[in-house]
Amino acid sequence: MSAIAYRFAVNVTPKPGILDPQGRAVEASLGHLGIVGVSGVRVGRRIELTVEAASEEAARGVAGRLAAELLANPLIEAHEIELLGSGAPGAR
Amino acid sequence: MSAIAYRFAVNVTPKPGILDPQGRAVEASLGHLGIVGVSGVRVGRRIELTVEAASEEAARGVAGRLAAELLANPLIEAHEIELLGSGAPGAR
Repeated sequence: MSAIAYRFAVNVTPKPGILDPQGRAVEASLGHLGIVGVSGVRVGRRIELTVEAASEEAARGVAGRLAAELLANPLIEAHEIELLGSGAPGAR
Repeated sequence: MSAIAYRFAVNVTPKPGILDPQGRAVEASLGHLGIVGVSGVRVGRRIELTVEAASEEAARGVAGRLAAELLANPLIEAHEIELLGSGAPGAR
């Protein structure tokens, strides 16, 4: 069984109710730019990565472990995993 | 014409060829976690925000201006705008 390369994005966002100073900073800058009608700004991270595995399920498992153990702080951040594409290894 | 609230995500990623020290740091940590088969890690940002506007086109224009002028550095970062949902203002 040959490996397939899966490209994922891990989207990490502050959980609801958690203070988000970067989001507040963006909102405070809007007036200077003359931008109106923008609210609810939340700043998180987006990590894109390739996982080589035998199946999409196995690849998602690796990405999920990485997200939970390294990329997100589960106390204050939520994460979701998004499949961007797949193909032969090395072809990304 | 009443305003509609559009929820967007702005995904900001390092452009191809641009050095990504955070991505290298994640890759260097994989061995300690016993995770294999992961490569091509790129660390960016994900900003979620609500724009109140009369149409989706107008709302996308505001989000695009905000992304280009405040959220991303166009010299080294690419950005894409993703519509997450829409509804009555205040209902997000």
